[in-house]
Amino acid sequence: MSWLTQPVAAIDHAAEAEAQARQQQLTKPSGSLGRLEQLAIRLAGMQGCTCPQIKRVRMAVFAADHGVAAEGVSAYPQAVTAEMVRNFARGGAAINVAARVLEAELQVWNLGTVAPLEALPGVQHRIIAPQSGNLLHGPAMSEGQLQQALEVGRDAVLEAECDLFIGGEMGIANTTAATALGVALTGLPVVDLVGPGTGLDQAGLARKARVIEQALRRHGDDRDPLALLASLGGFEIAALTGACLAAAQAGIPVLVDGFICTVAALLACRYRPEVADWLVFAHHSAEPGYRYLSEALPSRPLLDLGLRLGEGSGAAVAVPLLRMACELHAGMATFAEAAVSEKSP
Amino acid sequence: MSWLTQPVAAIDHAAEAEAQARQQQLTKPSGSLGRLEQLAIRLAGMQGCTCPQIKRVRMAVFAADHGVAAEGVSAYPQAVTAEMVRNFARGGAAINVAARVLEAELQVWNLGTVAPLEALPGVQHRIIAPQSGNLLHGPAMSEGQLQQALEVGRDAVLEAECDLFIGGEMGIANTTAATALGVALTGLPVVDLVGPGTGLDQAGLARKARVIEQALRRHGDDRDPLALLASLGGFEIAALTGACLAAAQAGIPVLVDGFICTVAALLACRYRPEVADWLVFAHHSAEPGYRYLSEALPSRPLLDLGLRLGEGSGAAVAVPLLRMACELHAGMATFAEAAVSEKSP
Repeated sequence: MSWLTQPVAAIDHAAEAEAQARQQQLTKPSGSLGRLEQLAIRLAGMQGCTCPQIKRVRMAVFAADHGVAAEGVSAYPQAVTAEMVRNFARGGAAINVAARVLEAELQVWNLGTVAPLEALPGVQHRIIAPQSGNLLHGPAMSEGQLQQALEVGRDAVLEAECDLFIGGEMGIANTTAATALGVALTGLPVVDLVGPGTGLDQAGLARKARVIEQALRRHGDDRDPLALLASLGGFEIAALTGACLAAAQAGIPVLVDGFICTVAALLACRYRPEVADWLVFAHHSAEPGYRYLSEALPSRPLLDLGLRLGEGSGAAVAVPLLRMACELHAGMATFAEAAVSEKSP
Repeated sequence: MSWLTQPVAAIDHAAEAEAQARQQQLTKPSGSLGRLEQLAIRLAGMQGCTCPQIKRVRMAVFAADHGVAAEGVSAYPQAVTAEMVRNFARGGAAINVAARVLEAELQVWNLGTVAPLEALPGVQHRIIAPQSGNLLHGPAMSEGQLQQALEVGRDAVLEAECDLFIGGEMGIANTTAATALGVALTGLPVVDLVGPGTGLDQAGLARKARVIEQALRRHGDDRDPLALLASLGGFEIAALTGACLAAAQAGIPVLVDGFICTVAALLACRYRPEVADWLVFAHHSAEPGYRYLSEALPSRPLLDLGLRLGEGSGAAVAVPLLRMACELHAGMATFAEAAVSEKSP
């Protein structure tokens, strides 16, 4: 039996209730820490303890090239995928800086780039193909390739113990694949979900929309999440989906980044709705279609800072909020401990 | 000549331009780090260097009691102000936990509490009176008391070198004073700005609105910020106003907390509009009137997490965003350094 069908871990509702009770006793008006209180309570339920903590953060960036890049749907040349993997290995990308600031462990998983890559520090080569198939002309990947990609995501989650998992992605043209998946999953018109990605101009945006329209006509009306992934999704999107599923099975909270990662999360939730219990949504991406994904889940992202970089960077920016929520929850005095009067009767 | 009339420091527009140019060269699509890019550029202009940094964070919590508490405008008894100062001294409040997490320096300034306070570690006693005058029946403070309170704010800023200043407040009934000031400054109806503060019920909220209406009828139509402060403001609100002004004069960025601190910031900006150059707004308070203050400034807060605790806690939660903005700005590789291709022509 495939690992995919293993059950998702259960939330510990007793720990959640204990955390809720603790919040009522801390020296502040009840509810005055807003979403930080809710975060601490949710994390308590996930970690099965009254006072959760986010010490060990594991980040995995999945990189892959996309056949659909040939259609001129990205503002950047395809060579950038491999070049950015080298940049990750040398520590120069945004996610590297964030990982250092957060003292998080960062690993890069290469699922296949058109420009071949040498051995690189911190990079796991799990190459499926130089790129996914061009979704305009055929399926993005075979059933076997899909299984491989999902497994890379699972392996990235299970490789080390952690309190929080963050997935990220790098792949020129991957907003085209993600948008096609988003349209197929939500049933919304392409025009709602399509956006400039890394910075397409108006002509490029129109071309991208046409490519997605045609691909979806070719693809038909299937709504099965894994079938959609094989038809439209890049390898890194499939890995992110596998990572969400594996983390939920293993009982590890996932902090979900922006547009691409949220499509992967939506896929995982459509495949297995209980996965949603394990997801915290980090930020509202500047990619215009994000809001429709957010409504479809539904999700309520923590931040809205106009970020649209990918790599997991928006999730990284939200990590200090989770840590602060946990520290306030565990570290504040109670009314009784501090001899502070409670609310007037 | 009073320190209040000293000029506000000038922003270094050359450093800002250099930071802007650097952002264009980092290995990411231009603009893809959204408001984090803008923050790094603004901080460069404030600190006068291409790569700003937020290492030394100084927090000052100003505590004071309010005569208007006698009108039943708070959900908590007045004793809580002094009790919370003791909680600050023992390290049990939210702002203590945040200061530890952020490795920030926290000092508490006691401007006067009805329950007398003993010597306490980390607390500066600069007592003006046991409480401000009840604004329903007369001015909150004399001209001399106003000057004293403004000076406490100035002294809190100037006492130590820092890269960022955060003011916070504690004072039962201080949303009543702050709301009255907000109404006087914006000219909006009381019903728009008044809110539950620490958790008033509907009857309490109606009472609070009536108290503010009556106080404002008594007070007249003066719009002079310092005159308004003397008539309506608590000592801690005046200290926060003085702190904003002194920080802007000294060229120190201020991260502004929620409702009360934003009223103080609005007062400082009405008194001296250039102060706005030195303010970063941390979060959208859950107090319903906050949005009108934000429109009046105008400001664009970084976070919106439903916080309404005060103490400077919402500003503290935003500190990691500023730090991350600076670290990404300074630490990422450029396209040239990383040999990554730029955008297609």
